[in-house]
Amino acid sequence: MSWKLGIVGASGVVGQEAWKLAAEFLGNEVEVVGFASSERTLENGQKVLALESSEAELQECDWIINAANSEMGHWLRERLKPGQSLVDNSSAFRMETDVPLVVPEVNGKLLDSYTGQVIANPNCTAAILCVALSALKPWAIQRVIVSTYQAASGAGIAGLQELEQQLKIVAQEGGESPDFSKVSTEVFGEVLAANVLSHNSASRMNAAAPGYLYNDEEYKVVQETNKILGEPDLQVSATCARVPVIRAHTESVTVDLESDCSLEEVREAFSSAPGVQVVDDFQNGSFPSPLKAQNQDLVLVGRIRRDIQRSRSWHFFIAGDQLRKGAASNALQICRLLQQKSSGGAS
Amino acid sequence: MSWKLGIVGASGVVGQEAWKLAAEFLGNEVEVVGFASSERTLENGQKVLALESSEAELQECDWIINAANSEMGHWLRERLKPGQSLVDNSSAFRMETDVPLVVPEVNGKLLDSYTGQVIANPNCTAAILCVALSALKPWAIQRVIVSTYQAASGAGIAGLQELEQQLKIVAQEGGESPDFSKVSTEVFGEVLAANVLSHNSASRMNAAAPGYLYNDEEYKVVQETNKILGEPDLQVSATCARVPVIRAHTESVTVDLESDCSLEEVREAFSSAPGVQVVDDFQNGSFPSPLKAQNQDLVLVGRIRRDIQRSRSWHFFIAGDQLRKGAASNALQICRLLQQKSSGGAS
Repeated sequence: MSWKLGIVGASGVVGQEAWKLAAEFLGNEVEVVGFASSERTLENGQKVLALESSEAELQECDWIINAANSEMGHWLRERLKPGQSLVDNSSAFRMETDVPLVVPEVNGKLLDSYTGQVIANPNCTAAILCVALSALKPWAIQRVIVSTYQAASGAGIAGLQELEQQLKIVAQEGGESPDFSKVSTEVFGEVLAANVLSHNSASRMNAAAPGYLYNDEEYKVVQETNKILGEPDLQVSATCARVPVIRAHTESVTVDLESDCSLEEVREAFSSAPGVQVVDDFQNGSFPSPLKAQNQDLVLVGRIRRDIQRSRSWHFFIAGDQLRKGAASNALQICRLLQQKSSGGAS
Repeated sequence: MSWKLGIVGASGVVGQEAWKLAAEFLGNEVEVVGFASSERTLENGQKVLALESSEAELQECDWIINAANSEMGHWLRERLKPGQSLVDNSSAFRMETDVPLVVPEVNGKLLDSYTGQVIANPNCTAAILCVALSALKPWAIQRVIVSTYQAASGAGIAGLQELEQQLKIVAQEGGESPDFSKVSTEVFGEVLAANVLSHNSASRMNAAAPGYLYNDEEYKVVQETNKILGEPDLQVSATCARVPVIRAHTESVTVDLESDCSLEEVREAFSSAPGVQVVDDFQNGSFPSPLKAQNQDLVLVGRIRRDIQRSRSWHFFIAGDQLRKGAASNALQICRLLQQKSSGGAS
């Protein structure tokens, strides 16, 4: 059986990852067709089609991954043909009641009975978080508090280039008082090199949460974590920040559990959780970090410890590649589930 | 009246800051004498005396700031003459019951009735945190959860140089897969450039907190925050991480309060708190950051917001110069209080 995967936004960082990894997830018999705003040949030789003049090619795809924005998600949904599925990485449909928001390791079962055509791919920070949190569900999570250390590439190629240009200045002039007057700060608003910035997403001062002053990224983490874990009343809070890291997000997580458990039980739960790798070598000081997490699909979990004063509160540190598990790989995992379903069972 | 300030560890990053700022805090009539392990002239022309052969000069100092390690703190305490005070920046005496652990804006009053000779200067992360937390005491803080983004210079000149060397490699080779094989990772254990690392302090698996797996930095934040705020039962947890920042620590803080308050009340409490500057411009996206906080003494507080689901929980983001407010400036503020006390009142 042959398959066709369409990637919309194929020249962006997430689109490129999906293209690179497609065969790994879906097998060599999958043909990838890349779409972008205009027809061109990328530096790596890949040819992308102009979306607006290639509707025929789009209609031949079994699965379409939208790695572009929300408007594109809506445009694509309107054009879906019977039998096609849209795996949408934008935030367009994530909170729609009828659309499953899927992290395969956590709630992939939702797809077994799903007959709709749109599946939402979560926010990168929420996806990585939920892979880890899912391991603790046996003890009933009551509250989650997360602070993030997010990479520049989460803001796309432009964000990555902006940081790299700034890092050159720091390297040339030393970090004490580099002259940043000539570098761009268009993406992050301020210099990110040698700095920490509140996440550059838009402010959230609207009707959804009036007066709460969360930014969009934080609001997504709260809402999507509730939906992915299937626990709408779970208390989740997030503080999202950018750090001068190229790739992979890190998160400091505190959870309050309803039940007692031992350190060994928590470790074992993480160790046996799908999609998790425990990196927690206290003796040698080796823990999750973005450099360890990048370019692979596992969520690294470490610094696992009980709170000194609260016996049912736990802290841990996680890192995951936001372009892979937080975006492209998660979307491809969803496509693989759809592929298995079409093929009549698990491969 | 003339005064003499001795700085032990005068060639280190904290010692140098203290020397630079001494006149600003203590007036031009203060003479500074720098001590180190050997006699030499620093690059900036300052002459430091060899401590072991300069006990006579040490005995002439009104105040001695120990900017070296804990062993030095003990060595100095044994040699104190009547009338001398030791402001110790190491962790040697911080948790001793009879020794005040002082952040002047928070608990400087302790010195009014104190007749001992040793005053402890807090851990940098705890000092910055307590300046901000102190503003919320009117509503009775029940629980504090903090995740840190700490600068390389917190690990001294060696840490700073290690990061700067690594940043040069990232700038030269781009961030995707730089070759770090030839750079030193001696201070932080792993590459810090373009990375996030669990704090490089020793692990805490000892009798003080068996099995809790906090590192020393985290344990200090918990213990010292309780002592500085004068609330031994306050629940405090910390996750301490290093980020590739030159100078100034950033902290993401969640607090649970016992009483209701409005956003305006919380903002006003921070705005009027000594040592705090509110940087919280949601419209323009300007919030606390290490680049904004460095080279000055205020703790910047922003991203102040109520939790979406818990009306008595609050989140905020703080940044402070850990070499100044977190170390040298705080020590000099303590010396100033001692100076005022000797002079028979406030200056």
